[in-house]
Amino acid sequence: MAYLNENYLKLQAGYLFPEIARRVRDFCEANSEAAKRLIRCGIGDVTEPLPRVVIDAMKRAVSELGNRETFRGYGPEQGYEFLRSTIAQRDYRDRKIDIADDEIFVSDGSKCDCGYVLDILGDQNKVAVPDPVYPVYVDTNVMAGHSGAAKSDGSYEGVVYLPCTAENGFVPEPPKEHVDLVYLCFPNNPTGAVASREQLSRWIDYAREHESLLLFDAAYEAYISEREIPHSIFEISGARECAVELRSFSKNGGFTGVRCGFTVMPKSVLGRTDSGKKLPLHPLWHRRWSTKANSVSYPVQRGAEALYSSEGRQQVRALIEHYMRNAKILRDACAKIDMQVFGGINAPYIWVKTPAGLTSWQTFDRMLRELNVVITPGSGFGAQGEGYFRISAFNSRENAEEVARRLQNLS
Amino acid sequence: MAYLNENYLKLQAGYLFPEIARRVRDFCEANSEAAKRLIRCGIGDVTEPLPRVVIDAMKRAVSELGNRETFRGYGPEQGYEFLRSTIAQRDYRDRKIDIADDEIFVSDGSKCDCGYVLDILGDQNKVAVPDPVYPVYVDTNVMAGHSGAAKSDGSYEGVVYLPCTAENGFVPEPPKEHVDLVYLCFPNNPTGAVASREQLSRWIDYAREHESLLLFDAAYEAYISEREIPHSIFEISGARECAVELRSFSKNGGFTGVRCGFTVMPKSVLGRTDSGKKLPLHPLWHRRWSTKANSVSYPVQRGAEALYSSEGRQQVRALIEHYMRNAKILRDACAKIDMQVFGGINAPYIWVKTPAGLTSWQTFDRMLRELNVVITPGSGFGAQGEGYFRISAFNSRENAEEVARRLQNLS
Repeated sequence: MAYLNENYLKLQAGYLFPEIARRVRDFCEANSEAAKRLIRCGIGDVTEPLPRVVIDAMKRAVSELGNRETFRGYGPEQGYEFLRSTIAQRDYRDRKIDIADDEIFVSDGSKCDCGYVLDILGDQNKVAVPDPVYPVYVDTNVMAGHSGAAKSDGSYEGVVYLPCTAENGFVPEPPKEHVDLVYLCFPNNPTGAVASREQLSRWIDYAREHESLLLFDAAYEAYISEREIPHSIFEISGARECAVELRSFSKNGGFTGVRCGFTVMPKSVLGRTDSGKKLPLHPLWHRRWSTKANSVSYPVQRGAEALYSSEGRQQVRALIEHYMRNAKILRDACAKIDMQVFGGINAPYIWVKTPAGLTSWQTFDRMLRELNVVITPGSGFGAQGEGYFRISAFNSRENAEEVARRLQNLS
Repeated sequence: MAYLNENYLKLQAGYLFPEIARRVRDFCEANSEAAKRLIRCGIGDVTEPLPRVVIDAMKRAVSELGNRETFRGYGPEQGYEFLRSTIAQRDYRDRKIDIADDEIFVSDGSKCDCGYVLDILGDQNKVAVPDPVYPVYVDTNVMAGHSGAAKSDGSYEGVVYLPCTAENGFVPEPPKEHVDLVYLCFPNNPTGAVASREQLSRWIDYAREHESLLLFDAAYEAYISEREIPHSIFEISGARECAVELRSFSKNGGFTGVRCGFTVMPKSVLGRTDSGKKLPLHPLWHRRWSTKANSVSYPVQRGAEALYSSEGRQQVRALIEHYMRNAKILRDACAKIDMQVFGGINAPYIWVKTPAGLTSWQTFDRMLRELNVVITPGSGFGAQGEGYFRISAFNSRENAEEVARRLQNLS
């Protein structure tokens, strides 16, 4: 009988968001009246329509596929040149960051890229993740056999957890020990924290000293409001030798259902073989895409390109401002009832201390029951997330204001 | 330094199609006049526009994303219910095949699924592939460490190759030895061969006796013209216990650039752990999608759904007839110059014996140089493909007729 991948059997419970969906479904089935006033601030999913430029570009592209003369079949597996060069120019070279077109790899989303990137990495790597953490970083490593068994607190043997606490402002310092692979995410999901240039520089120093690889998730860079905060790891000198960056159109362009993102894989990043030979990762990554994919839907790539037009940028800006105004409303509402709040300044997430004596899931259940509001329990993001919850600012203004009102009634 | 996946270093040369693209590009750059009359019958990429119903459905879906009321963000990771149930009903239950909606998993193409499926399988599996073979089956296994080193003929140690030759009508019988995982593809790419009910039954018998898993690639099922040929492995009794089926909208709906396909993962298929415990693969596959993906672009899923409407079916039928008429023209042209031809009856590929004394790549180069026609060298599909080439019928009628004319001038 075919062997299955036993690493899957180590995985704890359901993946966080399906688990939330299950609890909400159960609640709604049992409480049909309350279900009608349910407001979801759980999963970080956008709510506002796609920018006009995207709609137009996608429809145009669909029309092209309806005509023999303009029809396109398989595209280049790494993404169309029109999109790769636009990204490299606008997101990087225009900001004086040296990234070549062919260092951009277009994907169907950065969640997917998190898994894909492990394809080209060895199983011997010692992996470090922040705690709390976007569960995908951990689960994909567990599935790939890069961890031991699960412990009772939901963490895994063999993975190095970097505590992100109120004490360190939710930005971990590099560890004392050696790790090969480090996941960093700024602006952070779930805490909303950002890392300063100095903090990121210390990570680059660590990575260069230890010859580690940094996987830098910048999916929320568009939400940065403070001038001095870096938007890309490649703003830090030395990063081209030790970092890979993940980006997404989900949260700036509202592409959560459209699906597009990209990785930046500099040609100067090396990996090692067991025997100590050092080789660039770029050709492996290129080969991964050639062999395992046929790139992203053509109309989707045209939609993503449209976000970079001057109209597109304005429309993205308006979306970000909408969500960040929600963030302010929600932050203020929490503060008003003396809850301790973090994040929500450079990120669409507000990270809130649970009321005294309540665990994250207890707070989840209480807010669901009493306020009919769905939040995300902090412990779902890791042991250090216990005692916190995340409120997402992805919502209509009306809902954000209503949640702010209901919060005042929390018992 | 982070370890890289050394299995990638075992991979031979470039992946076949990029290698063809490179040779064609070099030729065109050196021969600008000849480049103008180049006709591509190499890569199996569709050429005709998308069916009208798809264009309309995709545009409607894009419009929905442009309105707050109808906007959709993240969809269910395994695909929208509207598409999963349509597929299960139309492709299976309407044909008296017992497949549940939640046994359908929507993906961004069956090339991608070939790689994804290895995620949930163990590394101990003994793998068998046909020879010649769609290179993705082999390369994804090499990348996952399921093979030894490459041999001089391009095959890999540790993989069992099932010779598909003129003698067995390009349909291999089950091997004498035990294998855990078998890739089968009918209608076959590249040979165009199909397997009869009896031949597939012998594979099911083998799989049940050896408790093997069959990965059945039915990407070309829409091209079957002969009544008695099965379209799905699940038409064969016992397949629900030992087979997974891969399907694609690339070649029926012309989705090569739109990207959509699906796998059928019956709940009754089991895998084993090292200690001999038997567990269903379905929950692992479900988890894989929950953790590693956010499903396929919403407008794409609506486009795929439209293919199943009665109008959609007619439009697909017209596309298939177009390509299969090309196949007949090309088959006849080859036969006229006394070339030995196979396939092209139930598949859009014609498998042709090379002129005496010429290797596959020599024939490729000669046809490129003399006829300015791009074909695919059979040896690119495996050792048993040496001495053959593949002509794809995916083309305009005009081009198919022109290639047929030019073939008469082959020296």
